[in-house]
Amino acid sequence: MKLNGIGASPGIAIGNALVVEHSEIVIEKIEEVNVDVELKKLSDAVNVSKEELTKVKEKVARELGEEEAEIFGAHLLVLEDPEFIGEAENKIKNEAINAEYALNDVKEMFVTIFESMDNDYMRERAADIKDVTNRVLRHILGIKVVDLSSLDEEVILVAHDLTPSDTATMDKSKVFGFLTNIGGRTSHTAIMARTLEIAAVVGLNDATEKIEDGDFIIFDGDKGEVLINPEQKIIEEYTEKKKLFEEDKKALELLKGKPSVTIDGKHVELAGNIGTPNDVEGLIKNDAEGVGLYRTEFLYMDSDEFPNEEVQYEAYKAVLEGMNGKPIVIRTLDIGGDKKLSYFEMEEEMNPFLGYRAIRLCLDKTDIFKTQLRALFRSSVHGKLRIMFPMISSLEELLSAKEVCEEVKSELKSEGIAYSNDVEIGMMIEIPSAAIISDVLAKHVDFFSIGTNDLIQYTCAVDRMNQKISNLYNQFNPAVLRLINMVIKNAHKEGKWVGMCGESAGDQKMIPILLGFGLDEFSMSPISILRARRLINSVKESDMKILAEKVLSMSTAKEIEKYMNEFINNR
Amino acid sequence: MKLNGIGASPGIAIGNALVVEHSEIVIEKIEEVNVDVELKKLSDAVNVSKEELTKVKEKVARELGEEEAEIFGAHLLVLEDPEFIGEAENKIKNEAINAEYALNDVKEMFVTIFESMDNDYMRERAADIKDVTNRVLRHILGIKVVDLSSLDEEVILVAHDLTPSDTATMDKSKVFGFLTNIGGRTSHTAIMARTLEIAAVVGLNDATEKIEDGDFIIFDGDKGEVLINPEQKIIEEYTEKKKLFEEDKKALELLKGKPSVTIDGKHVELAGNIGTPNDVEGLIKNDAEGVGLYRTEFLYMDSDEFPNEEVQYEAYKAVLEGMNGKPIVIRTLDIGGDKKLSYFEMEEEMNPFLGYRAIRLCLDKTDIFKTQLRALFRSSVHGKLRIMFPMISSLEELLSAKEVCEEVKSELKSEGIAYSNDVEIGMMIEIPSAAIISDVLAKHVDFFSIGTNDLIQYTCAVDRMNQKISNLYNQFNPAVLRLINMVIKNAHKEGKWVGMCGESAGDQKMIPILLGFGLDEFSMSPISILRARRLINSVKESDMKILAEKVLSMSTAKEIEKYMNEFINNR
Repeated sequence: MKLNGIGASPGIAIGNALVVEHSEIVIEKIEEVNVDVELKKLSDAVNVSKEELTKVKEKVARELGEEEAEIFGAHLLVLEDPEFIGEAENKIKNEAINAEYALNDVKEMFVTIFESMDNDYMRERAADIKDVTNRVLRHILGIKVVDLSSLDEEVILVAHDLTPSDTATMDKSKVFGFLTNIGGRTSHTAIMARTLEIAAVVGLNDATEKIEDGDFIIFDGDKGEVLINPEQKIIEEYTEKKKLFEEDKKALELLKGKPSVTIDGKHVELAGNIGTPNDVEGLIKNDAEGVGLYRTEFLYMDSDEFPNEEVQYEAYKAVLEGMNGKPIVIRTLDIGGDKKLSYFEMEEEMNPFLGYRAIRLCLDKTDIFKTQLRALFRSSVHGKLRIMFPMISSLEELLSAKEVCEEVKSELKSEGIAYSNDVEIGMMIEIPSAAIISDVLAKHVDFFSIGTNDLIQYTCAVDRMNQKISNLYNQFNPAVLRLINMVIKNAHKEGKWVGMCGESAGDQKMIPILLGFGLDEFSMSPISILRARRLINSVKESDMKILAEKVLSMSTAKEIEKYMNEFINNR
Repeated sequence: MKLNGIGASPGIAIGNALVVEHSEIVIEKIEEVNVDVELKKLSDAVNVSKEELTKVKEKVARELGEEEAEIFGAHLLVLEDPEFIGEAENKIKNEAINAEYALNDVKEMFVTIFESMDNDYMRERAADIKDVTNRVLRHILGIKVVDLSSLDEEVILVAHDLTPSDTATMDKSKVFGFLTNIGGRTSHTAIMARTLEIAAVVGLNDATEKIEDGDFIIFDGDKGEVLINPEQKIIEEYTEKKKLFEEDKKALELLKGKPSVTIDGKHVELAGNIGTPNDVEGLIKNDAEGVGLYRTEFLYMDSDEFPNEEVQYEAYKAVLEGMNGKPIVIRTLDIGGDKKLSYFEMEEEMNPFLGYRAIRLCLDKTDIFKTQLRALFRSSVHGKLRIMFPMISSLEELLSAKEVCEEVKSELKSEGIAYSNDVEIGMMIEIPSAAIISDVLAKHVDFFSIGTNDLIQYTCAVDRMNQKISNLYNQFNPAVLRLINMVIKNAHKEGKWVGMCGESAGDQKMIPILLGFGLDEFSMSPISILRARRLINSVKESDMKILAEKVLSMSTAKEIEKYMNEFINNR
């Protein structure tokens, strides 16, 4: 049997299935119970859960860092919240009902309230409450939980979805792959799989129904194909593929420490995109030459209030020090659009992608912006900092943002607080108007970084999340390529460098074109870096210039895509 | 006292206020009534209302045309709907309550249902129901309604809002101006005011509270300023302004029949934008040299089902014949975004302006598209037809749309149905990608028409409806001006002409720049045409080229706007 899902993390996985179903917990209501017995059941289960969570939290903090461990802190807080457990106790007392029913009722009330809030943060809290309450419920009901932290043999995990507890506590050395019913390329499971470099396919709909414990599974985490109990011939074929993949991975290892240079001597910078200081580890592992995009919004989204200057300073410092003198591009706050904060109310907008967000919001709420800039400049003494503004559409906005930087610097100076004078100031090119007047803007920045995801979206007037028109969203769109080329040429005329931090920068079919255009820095998911280096090492810049000219002469995305497919496949 | 609102229709109005309050009708519930008496009250009021509506409908059909009269047909249908009046009768019988309470209750139920549908069409039906029920309620309650069709003296109407019945039946010769509490530049009142060339200010919030019957009012429909009982000096000042405005209007009349040509002999075409065949009258009155944009979506939005080929053919033929051989650009269906159809379900989209709309929808649902194209080609024998596709973002879409045209033509041919072989095929330039590859696209069209409203929106990533970022939406944005210039130059290289049908084409501060760029056709609101002609008649193309170069050298919208303000004010 064959299932098709969304390829979420590359690699070939071959092995036996372990179905971690997280099957629905069935709760029955029992009335006229012995209240004291039920209260004891509840408090025992809560105590066992707390002990488990404390252990998990310590293990995660030790192995993955304090920040990753925070989620278990959040779970512990739920169990310590008198409004939560107290409410369940009251229910048992007042209604003389069984503990699991009372607790489940309270859980559902809280989850309903939190989920109904149209807010990502609150929905996450709802997920936390579910996760931790289910743990307690399993203890009350005596349901055995598959303990992922001590697996007897190597397995492919099959689950409805993997929770943060699952991925944080599992014994990674025994897990060959993840298969989940739900999720997309940016779901928790997908992101964790790529971070852990474990092959994964998500969005399989009914993997937990179609696959049984012990089934022999083969899957391709690139293509999203899953084979259940395949015939011997197929197994051999995939074993070979897996071997090639592993060999390839080893071969890539050899590129660590090597320069990112073309045959004819053109050096470029291969950097990584990160969301939190913890991601630095993956960068170092993949030999990133810097950070091309540190998305600071996670610092704001993972908090209950605006992170203060000190909290931000520590985070920025951690990245700068962690990367040990390599250049770090930190992007100022980019919220709005689809990214909201629980503690900052924003009006509903008809078209949030064309709305009040990023630098537009920061220039309007300068107190938020100044706090971040103060933290950034203070951190600048700990490494090579580059500050980048998102969503600039006009020269006025750029100049206003730079003015706030000057204000902040003079404040710091008068307070006697140190900052570096070598901080580079740059901006994203992700709005067509910015690309079109990049000759003007280039005079006022140290660098540009092209954000292809948004640039394609606005240039072609296509919401990249909208499935109905996804055929129109294409990185090979000739208008987009012309803009990218123009931006690079305009910047170079002013002696400024240009990076790219959109998905395209790590795409094997785009890299040759971008090299030909003269792109100076490529910033991508850490796992793409060594493959990019190998490609760059294998070509001549002069050939890529000819290739880029050829591509620019083409009229449709389809034609260009076909040409690049052939180029990559015939190498 | 001074009020500030939104200038909705130009002109200086001076006169006495007539407050048409449409005050809230107060309904009390009376129980244990004489059911027969209440039923009779209801049927009498319904009958009187029907008589009134029939008269109004006939008057409007005679004076403004059948289509404008249709709204009163819709009102009559409500009164004839057994589910509606019958429901009120049942309520009176079953609950023994008074007629007005029963009717009002039924009204509110229907209005709530219709308004809750997230659909413009249904909301309009809700407005119809309110409008007609209030008429019946006033009759039941014996509330005198100001009869706008027979006014004793000249007045300035002050209202919460003007209803279609108000504007359709009023004695226009006695109305100097409109002032309303609610509405924006595109509200019914605003559009009617411009069509009727009556000065208007809308969105005044509390005009009906601040102004009393008989107050002496002066207002400027351009600036949105309203003065209540001003002092003599101000009255004299505005009387002078009004005189100048009237003289100016007369002077403009003299330009009818004159060519739209610069001093140094450059001819351009000054055309009008229309929504229905009825708008042709306003075009002829203002000496339009053609139609630069016929928005066919109203044909679809004002219907309960997809208009069939015959209905469309008649509408297109009416415009082509009405304009008597002058060229007519008809744009194919542009629904989606904020324009919905009651009878065609569309999925909710997170960013409708970046979504499934216009040509994207037509190329997906080719049956809808083909019906329209058949009607268009059939109508082509009745005048000079130009077909235009909206929202083209790539060469592929343009070629696909043209392919459907060829299919339709060969179908017509095989059916022996006549069509013209001289139909020009063009496209809107409103998406940045189209502007950027306009050199490629120009080879495949007969003309372009630049839609500045959307082009600005996408180029700058600014929803033009979003008040919070309206400072970023500016027609003088240098990136937008560069794109416009580029499109014109690219088209001319291929020997194709370029028009513009966005708001900018009729803007006195943009026309000089556009002339300098070489724009061939300007399509605007009919009332702007003669003022545009006067401006064009007064300048040299060679000077405008220098001006356009100067403008292109500037870096910010603010700088350009200031320059153009000075240019216009110093003439």
